[in-house]
Amino acid sequence: MTPEERVAELGLALPDYADPPYGARYGDVKAAHRIGTLVQLGGITAEDRSGTVHHPGIVGRDLGIPEAEDAARLAAINSLGMLRFVLGSLDEVRAIARLTVFVAATPEFAEHHLVTAGASGVYRDVFGEAGVAARATMGVSSLANRNCVELVLDVETRSPA
Amino acid sequence: MTPEERVAELGLALPDYADPPYGARYGDVKAAHRIGTLVQLGGITAEDRSGTVHHPGIVGRDLGIPEAEDAARLAAINSLGMLRFVLGSLDEVRAIARLTVFVAATPEFAEHHLVTAGASGVYRDVFGEAGVAARATMGVSSLANRNCVELVLDVETRSPA
Amino acid sequence: MTPEERVAELGLALPDYADPPYGARYGDVKAAHRIGTLVQLGGITAEDRSGTVHHPGIVGRDLGIPEAEDAARLAAINSLGMLRFVLGSLDEVRAIARLTVFVAATPEFAEHHLVTAGASGVYRDVFGEAGVAARATMGVSSLANRNCVELVLDVETRSPA
Repeated sequence: MTPEERVAELGLALPDYADPPYGARYGDVKAAHRIGTLVQLGGITAEDRSGTVHHPGIVGRDLGIPEAEDAARLAAINSLGMLRFVLGSLDEVRAIARLTVFVAATPEFAEHHLVTAGASGVYRDVFGEAGVAARATMGVSSLANRNCVELVLDVETRSPA
Repeated sequence: MTPEERVAELGLALPDYADPPYGARYGDVKAAHRIGTLVQLGGITAEDRSGTVHHPGIVGRDLGIPEAEDAARLAAINSLGMLRFVLGSLDEVRAIARLTVFVAATPEFAEHHLVTAGASGVYRDVFGEAGVAARATMGVSSLANRNCVELVLDVETRSPA
Repeated sequence: MTPEERVAELGLALPDYADPPYGARYGDVKAAHRIGTLVQLGGITAEDRSGTVHHPGIVGRDLGIPEAEDAARLAAINSLGMLRFVLGSLDEVRAIARLTVFVAATPEFAEHHLVTAGASGVYRDVFGEAGVAARATMGVSSLANRNCVELVLDVETRSPA
C-alpha cells in the first residue's frame, strides 16, 4: 500500500492547506522550502484550519501527557495535509528525515518523549519504516496561541524539487 | 533590483563580520556551513559587534512585543551581514529557506508570531518573495547574554559551495 | 592523524549504539537520516547506554556551569558513538556542519555559550578545524528524563549516502 492508500484506510481526515491558502493568517510565511530532495517544513501545531487550538496550555501545569500526546497526533496529521499541499501527494515522500518536537512544558516535566510518540505513531502508520525518523524533543516555555506542541519536520522526497 | 541594491535603498547598515573576525568572542564557532546550495547559519541575535545586547530580557516579563519585534528586526539585519560575510554578496541568496526563531518568553506569552514578524519583514523587504520562508517560532526560557530573540536560518544559494 | 586515531589517542570511550540496538528504549526512532552528504542526527543527551542521566536538572537552579559543561562534553562523546554507528567510522565525517544545543535553564541563566563550549571542545579535539561548527544555543524549560543538555547535530560526510 502507498502512503495515500494508508491514509484512506486509516480514515485520516487531512486538512486542506490550499483552501484557504496557507499563510493568510500569519503573513510572510510559506509552508515549506525544497532544496533537491530535502523539504524543510515550517512549524506545525494542533491548530486547525479554522484557528481552533486543540489542547492549549503548558504540559505539567494545564494538561497531562494524554492530551499532549493527542495534540502531537493532531499536529502530525496536519503535517500530512501540509506535505500533500507542498508535494501534491504523500506518495512523493521517501522518508521522514528528522522530527523535532517542541513541547510547552514546566521545568518539572520529564516525559517529553511520550508526547512525541503521538506524532511518531502517525508517521509509522502512514509511511511504515520510512516514517521512523531521527528525533529530538525539547520542553519550551510557551508557544504561539498557547499551543502545547509544535513540530518541525525535515522530509526526503523521491524526486528533487 | 538586486538584494544588495535593496539594502542600499533601504539604508540598512549591515554589520561587518569580517572585522573583527566573527567568532573571536565565543571561540570554536563559525558563521555558517555550506553543503551544495544549502547554507546552515548559526544562531543570530540582536547583539551588535561591540557586544551590546539590544532589548535584553524575557518577553512578557521584562519587555513587550514592540521591543521584541525590534530585536527580531535587528537580528535579521545582523543575519544579512553574516550572509554577506559568508557568501560575499547577498545577491548569491536564492531564497531564505527556513527561519526558526527562539523568543525568550514567559509561560503566559502567546504571540510569538508577532515577534517573528519583525525578522520576516526584513527578509521580504530585501529579497521579495524569495524572502518569504518556512517559519517556526518557539518560546524558550532564556538565551545567552539575556538576548530576547535568536534566529536560526537555513538559506539556499544560487551556486553550490 | 585521522579522527579515529585522535579518539584513540585522547582515550575517549565511545558508546556502542549497535549493542543493544539504538532506539529500543524509546521506539519509533532512528539515530540519523542521510540525504546526499548531509546527516541529520536526532537529539543526543548525556544519558548513557544503561539509561543513567549524568548531571540531571535545571542549570541555574539544580546545577552550575561546570556540571552542565561536562554534560555537554559527555553528550558530544555520545554523538561520536552515534556517528560511528551511522557512518561506520568517524573518518567519514567531513565536517560538523551545525551544532544546536538546548540547555534546560532558568529564565535568569545567561551563559548558555559556556555550556556549549563543553561540546565544541570535543569536536575540535577530534576533527580539528572541521569540528568548528555553526552553532546555536537556547535555554529550554525542561528536557526528557531531566537531562540538562540536548545536542542536535548536522554533519557533512565525505561520501554521499
